[in-house]
Amino acid sequence: MFKRLPEFYEEPDVGYSVYRLHFNENLFLPEEYYREILGGLESWEARYYTQPNNSSLAAKIEDHMGLPRGSVVITAGADDGLRLAIQLLHFAEERRLVVLEPTYSMPRILAEQLGIERVQLSYRPDLGVDVDEVARRAKGGAVYVCSPNNPTGHLVKELEELASRLEGLVIYDAAYAEFAGLWKPELYEYGNVVEARTFSKAWGLAGLRVGYLVARGPLASALKALAYPHPISSYSAKAVERALDLEKYVRRSVDEARAVRDEVAGRLLTDKYVGEANFITLKLEDAEAVAAELYKRGFAVRALGGRPLCESCLRFTVAPMDIMEKFLVALSEALKLK
Amino acid sequence: MFKRLPEFYEEPDVGYSVYRLHFNENLFLPEEYYREILGGLESWEARYYTQPNNSSLAAKIEDHMGLPRGSVVITAGADDGLRLAIQLLHFAEERRLVVLEPTYSMPRILAEQLGIERVQLSYRPDLGVDVDEVARRAKGGAVYVCSPNNPTGHLVKELEELASRLEGLVIYDAAYAEFAGLWKPELYEYGNVVEARTFSKAWGLAGLRVGYLVARGPLASALKALAYPHPISSYSAKAVERALDLEKYVRRSVDEARAVRDEVAGRLLTDKYVGEANFITLKLEDAEAVAAELYKRGFAVRALGGRPLCESCLRFTVAPMDIMEKFLVALSEALKLK
Repeated sequence: MFKRLPEFYEEPDVGYSVYRLHFNENLFLPEEYYREILGGLESWEARYYTQPNNSSLAAKIEDHMGLPRGSVVITAGADDGLRLAIQLLHFAEERRLVVLEPTYSMPRILAEQLGIERVQLSYRPDLGVDVDEVARRAKGGAVYVCSPNNPTGHLVKELEELASRLEGLVIYDAAYAEFAGLWKPELYEYGNVVEARTFSKAWGLAGLRVGYLVARGPLASALKALAYPHPISSYSAKAVERALDLEKYVRRSVDEARAVRDEVAGRLLTDKYVGEANFITLKLEDAEAVAAELYKRGFAVRALGGRPLCESCLRFTVAPMDIMEKFLVALSEALKLK
Repeated sequence: MFKRLPEFYEEPDVGYSVYRLHFNENLFLPEEYYREILGGLESWEARYYTQPNNSSLAAKIEDHMGLPRGSVVITAGADDGLRLAIQLLHFAEERRLVVLEPTYSMPRILAEQLGIERVQLSYRPDLGVDVDEVARRAKGGAVYVCSPNNPTGHLVKELEELASRLEGLVIYDAAYAEFAGLWKPELYEYGNVVEARTFSKAWGLAGLRVGYLVARGPLASALKALAYPHPISSYSAKAVERALDLEKYVRRSVDEARAVRDEVAGRLLTDKYVGEANFITLKLEDAEAVAAELYKRGFAVRALGGRPLCESCLRFTVAPMDIMEKFLVALSEALKLK
């Protein structure tokens, strides 16, 4: 019946009793922030479907971000947004997605799962982009760019050039943008840019599964057409509306995360990518073994490998300094022991 | 850049101050049920990603339903499950979905959005299925069957025959199964059946966006590969785990809904589909106009049209009898006035 079946990669379940440094959750937000967000649910919020397309929440985000009405599409986290953007290629001149490696793994997986051809290119060793080559290979399809990029953390300086040069779509993953001081969507005026944002990283609400896409009106409508009318729970919608009024906590936590990141980076002798997000990526010889040693010591981190410029890397989330102190001890042990 | 763009159909936002008889939400569940489910959220549940693939919730559903481990895949409502099942056709012999009309509109929309060819067939006037024709047209692709069917409410007697005869996949939408007394997934032993279930209808939790797919192990793994690892919010996962322990409320509400449905159906003189779910579908001459009149009177219903056997239909959710009494008055006015 099937020519082949997609393979299931089981994300390891590290639980909640270790230090979770593997998902780039924001570990700097105070309890107070959550207390103000997590108010009581009324029974109707569970019983009834949410407002179609979460139009109130979308409008609140548009106002908050200074965007025109009709430019925000609510999604179930950024992955759901990336899925919609890639799925849009079924309607494009070419069903093709260029992915610049090393980067977040989901887009290449989504392309395969959605029947879209994937073209792998790579950042230059200085992390620059060969815009000509991208334009030539993407043609009427799309390019995926994450900035700050996961796992290198670098800001992709060529984003705007890509937007103006490409015939096709630029799918711009801004999951970590707030950590780089980019609080507002930047390129939405380009008719060929879809920007994916999330409340899972800087906003510290990964458990609620809320993200959004930003695009110019007609493109936003097309993305909305591909979304379900009820992508997120009523509770999540309400909680995110409250969070938008509490941005001061998020900004403060971002400043703290950046300061700790730079301090920790300065103390690490290993070759590494630091960049502008809330993680640091070490270039090691055997990242898997070091990650396993760290897990024994109570730290979940992410071992990455087999990508250009990231043959064997270990990415960890920056946490408050008291946790980082313990982590640095565990890391130096793990590096000796592995 | 695009050959064409998908068109956005904006679901009307009827709000929560009218009688919502348009989405087949379960209006029979007591406040007590919700009070027991909607407990306090802890801050970690918002901060961190949920357990990958919601494996605890999947295991609890498997135990509850008497299914073997590895047969349940958690989805963001049944629509998300249908999307995964249809997306699986990118890996099948043929990228083709047969849809038997009249039925739920989402699968035909999803097929188009996912680059899958859709073949429209129709139920016979007696609501039977021409199994030979379906098998011949679906070939190595899939057929979508909803049972009890939306909007006819009828149970598709040929489901098992389709499962054993078809070369390809049977996508079985059991969104309303509990209203027909089908509390447990039925056809999961067939290696070519994907059954979509939801907590949005009989379980009364549409606002939480939780559904699941049931399939035999290898098929379930392939579906899990297409899902995101974190499809639903942590809060929704916890609430549904609690709801599973409160099935008695749900069963009682279903018995009440069935009794009211049959009583109301007996009092309606119009030609109609009654069937086994929590709605009744009237066959009218101008369903749109009647629906508009009803909305003026405080009742949101669903006007459907342009499908075989459902040229102009009006579907309404069965609500408790006091609401139905008012609705029947409004309906008789609307039928005269339109």
